[in-house]
Amino acid sequence: MPTADQRELLLSGIRDVPDWPEPGIVFKDITPLLRNPAAFGAAVDLLAGIGDTGSGYDGLDAVVGIEARGFILGAPVAQRLGVGFVPVRKEGKLPSRTSSASYELEYGRETVEMHRDALSPGDTVLIVDDVLATGGTARATIDLVRGAGAQVAGVSVLMELGFLNGREKLRDVTLTALLSL
Amino acid sequence: MPTADQRELLLSGIRDVPDWPEPGIVFKDITPLLRNPAAFGAAVDLLAGIGDTGSGYDGLDAVVGIEARGFILGAPVAQRLGVGFVPVRKEGKLPSRTSSASYELEYGRETVEMHRDALSPGDTVLIVDDVLATGGTARATIDLVRGAGAQVAGVSVLMELGFLNGREKLRDVTLTALLSL
Repeated sequence: MPTADQRELLLSGIRDVPDWPEPGIVFKDITPLLRNPAAFGAAVDLLAGIGDTGSGYDGLDAVVGIEARGFILGAPVAQRLGVGFVPVRKEGKLPSRTSSASYELEYGRETVEMHRDALSPGDTVLIVDDVLATGGTARATIDLVRGAGAQVAGVSVLMELGFLNGREKLRDVTLTALLSL
Repeated sequence: MPTADQRELLLSGIRDVPDWPEPGIVFKDITPLLRNPAAFGAAVDLLAGIGDTGSGYDGLDAVVGIEARGFILGAPVAQRLGVGFVPVRKEGKLPSRTSSASYELEYGRETVEMHRDALSPGDTVLIVDDVLATGGTARATIDLVRGAGAQVAGVSVLMELGFLNGREKLRDVTLTALLSL
């Protein structure tokens, strides 16, 4: 988890964008964080479990990143830990044979997919995304990983929007949120 | 540029997917490369200009990655070089004020966007993507970067599909393609 200084550094890179993507929503924009090498580097280290109290996730086979901002954070986390990267994408974006998992939105359903040969039984992975909101995408991703016979070492997100209670959908995994907003 | 061994390593991670996204197209799928830490690491180093003949791009202010596979390669390149990351996204995906650039496709037009405050006049950036095909996206991204008053140190891609002649649209920049297929 971040120190007080790291927390401040991360927070300085997150700005509120009111009324986006629709009126009444305040979007947490992480692009200033990505633009700042110190903040981006701290986020990657902390998501990888590297910090005052840890030297990084051990025994992982891959990092699974969720499209699209989860790619920006997850890919460097994979490199930092010296493991491969597996993209989980929106429906219809992956070219080879996929498994899919769906989740409910306020109106309608959303589907995410993973290549069937991306993980093997016995693999252990860390799932990375930028934001935990309602938890639907993270839940679907966990189900995809387990459906492939692989294990989830943890779900790591830069920030959790606590008022949306996404954490309740993820009670069966180790969830790490660097910030709770 | 890759050594013969690195070239073989990179090639081993790229598979042909016939008839995707439509009949008659052979898609070059890089997900096996991303899944292999050695191949993924070699790609990141080489895209960053790190190798036998170079110690990495110097004097950069940021790496610009193009949605979505360009995020997976560009973000670790930014971390490797210790600079910030700027996402260029499809229309309507970035929350704050954007500049946009469009390019022609076989049928219709596509638009990419960058946050207006992502770059400042005098900044120098490296643009990273996975594939150079017709060159439309890369051209539009160069125009966005220059429109912000910033300079393009180079465009680096994992592979170039030579038969599509994208290189011809990018004559005014230093183009590095690790593989030409």
